[in-house]
Amino acid sequence: MAQRLIGAVEAGGTKFVVALAQEDGTILARTRIPTETPATCFPAVARFFEQASAAHGAIAAFGVASFGPIDIDPASPSYGTFTTTPKPGWSGARFHDVLGRFGAPIVVDTDVNGAALGEWQAGAGRDCATLAYTTVGTGIGSGVLRHGRSIMGFSHFESGHIPVPHDHAVDPYVGFCPYHHDCLEGLAAGPAIKARWGQSLSELGSPADKVELIAGYVAQLAVSLVLLHMPDRLIFGGGVMKTPGLIPALRRAVETRLAGYIQAPQLDPGLERYIVGPALGDDAGITGAIALGRQALG
Amino acid sequence: MAQRLIGAVEAGGTKFVVALAQEDGTILARTRIPTETPATCFPAVARFFEQASAAHGAIAAFGVASFGPIDIDPASPSYGTFTTTPKPGWSGARFHDVLGRFGAPIVVDTDVNGAALGEWQAGAGRDCATLAYTTVGTGIGSGVLRHGRSIMGFSHFESGHIPVPHDHAVDPYVGFCPYHHDCLEGLAAGPAIKARWGQSLSELGSPADKVELIAGYVAQLAVSLVLLHMPDRLIFGGGVMKTPGLIPALRRAVETRLAGYIQAPQLDPGLERYIVGPALGDDAGITGAIALGRQALG
Repeated sequence: MAQRLIGAVEAGGTKFVVALAQEDGTILARTRIPTETPATCFPAVARFFEQASAAHGAIAAFGVASFGPIDIDPASPSYGTFTTTPKPGWSGARFHDVLGRFGAPIVVDTDVNGAALGEWQAGAGRDCATLAYTTVGTGIGSGVLRHGRSIMGFSHFESGHIPVPHDHAVDPYVGFCPYHHDCLEGLAAGPAIKARWGQSLSELGSPADKVELIAGYVAQLAVSLVLLHMPDRLIFGGGVMKTPGLIPALRRAVETRLAGYIQAPQLDPGLERYIVGPALGDDAGITGAIALGRQALG
Repeated sequence: MAQRLIGAVEAGGTKFVVALAQEDGTILARTRIPTETPATCFPAVARFFEQASAAHGAIAAFGVASFGPIDIDPASPSYGTFTTTPKPGWSGARFHDVLGRFGAPIVVDTDVNGAALGEWQAGAGRDCATLAYTTVGTGIGSGVLRHGRSIMGFSHFESGHIPVPHDHAVDPYVGFCPYHHDCLEGLAAGPAIKARWGQSLSELGSPADKVELIAGYVAQLAVSLVLLHMPDRLIFGGGVMKTPGLIPALRRAVETRLAGYIQAPQLDPGLERYIVGPALGDDAGITGAIALGRQALG
């Protein structure tokens, strides 16, 4: 049987990666488009898929893994629409406006849910019934999958904004979140690290005390994910998590805080199999977008 | 068409409530059995269902809402089995041992998931696609439903053990959790309140400062549930939540901490519709168990 074709969109804050892929994941065509505004970006996306479709055949489904905030509820009339993003021009933009012309079903999810799906399908979360993927970079966000489907409530999760214990005597930095000051993202995302110490942890040479401090904040989210989702594994990606020593420090902080309360084969001593980095690197996003398209195929 | 019959078990730490009900929820027979040990309790449960079935007809399905920890994964070989409970005799006991003889499908879930389901079906969560139910009593636990099905990972959630900011200058109490000392349950469950102040909040006359302190701890869980599950509503039940003024104080604490970050019609100003008490009172458990039995009917 001929492979059906999937249009995949990884929509990031600075660039889109768009690809035409076969059902089995083989990429037939791929390009990058600057995010800029929908007025410039969307026509380029349409042009790519028109040309790729002319060369390879009709597109049977689209998968979109996008920055947000965005409506990801398939039952909502504004499914696929950016909500209140501060990014100029993007509030109210809708993926169906550019992809609807191809007459194929469209699945839209968040970038972090897409990365989770990519890791579940082909990376570090392949054997997990429940998988939590968290990115710690410019922002902090988590996606949780159950049997390869992202879990949501009335909206996608906003794990970056959980409150964390903050000892001002140890860490006098006030935090940069415009809403909460010292929520997790306000204390541990990339911009908070640069604002506090002038450089990234890696640029600073990954000093143990600073790595421990950030690991402690991120551990609050990891422990909350365990207790409120019981995932089979936690993947931590994003630029900040590339800091040497940060994932080992996170494992230690999580193990200390759980204090043996959760007894399960998933939580190995030392948590080296339980808390891991991503396996797909820069390909997680487009792999996830293709997997979302596969869901749209039904 | 004749109503099929459901055997329902609400298994609490001190008593079981068992009932035979019609599919539509009408209870035909009901009794209470002391929990004691499986050796005394299980035969009484079997006797009740044998007699009720003799009077009313064959039982088509069982629903069990139980104290834990218990294996609630239908795909697990030990589904329906108590795991490491400190309750004498109950570790390793399995509901299938007593209910299997009736040859009907059995659905087992936690007591808090059962109460959530009861409230979703017939109480304060009727219109919610995603519903979070939390009990604050002897222990603290949460169940989250999506379209009337409880969400789980490799196990049921353990929301009572999330870490909470604890200012020893304001609240010098060390906490009573044997694993974590001052996790949420260690600071805010009924036993922590009695250990700290000698009486329950209601017995103390619900003094505003103490109510605010406990509300602040519980708010940490409420905010985490919002950010990590995005429920359409949060129900807070259990003995501690009956304290006059506690739910209003919780609403204020949650609204302050979210600080307007989550903009959604679900979160009404003041959160009076978003954070509520249960509507079913003592009937939530058995209503949930009947609903679980209905799931088993398929």
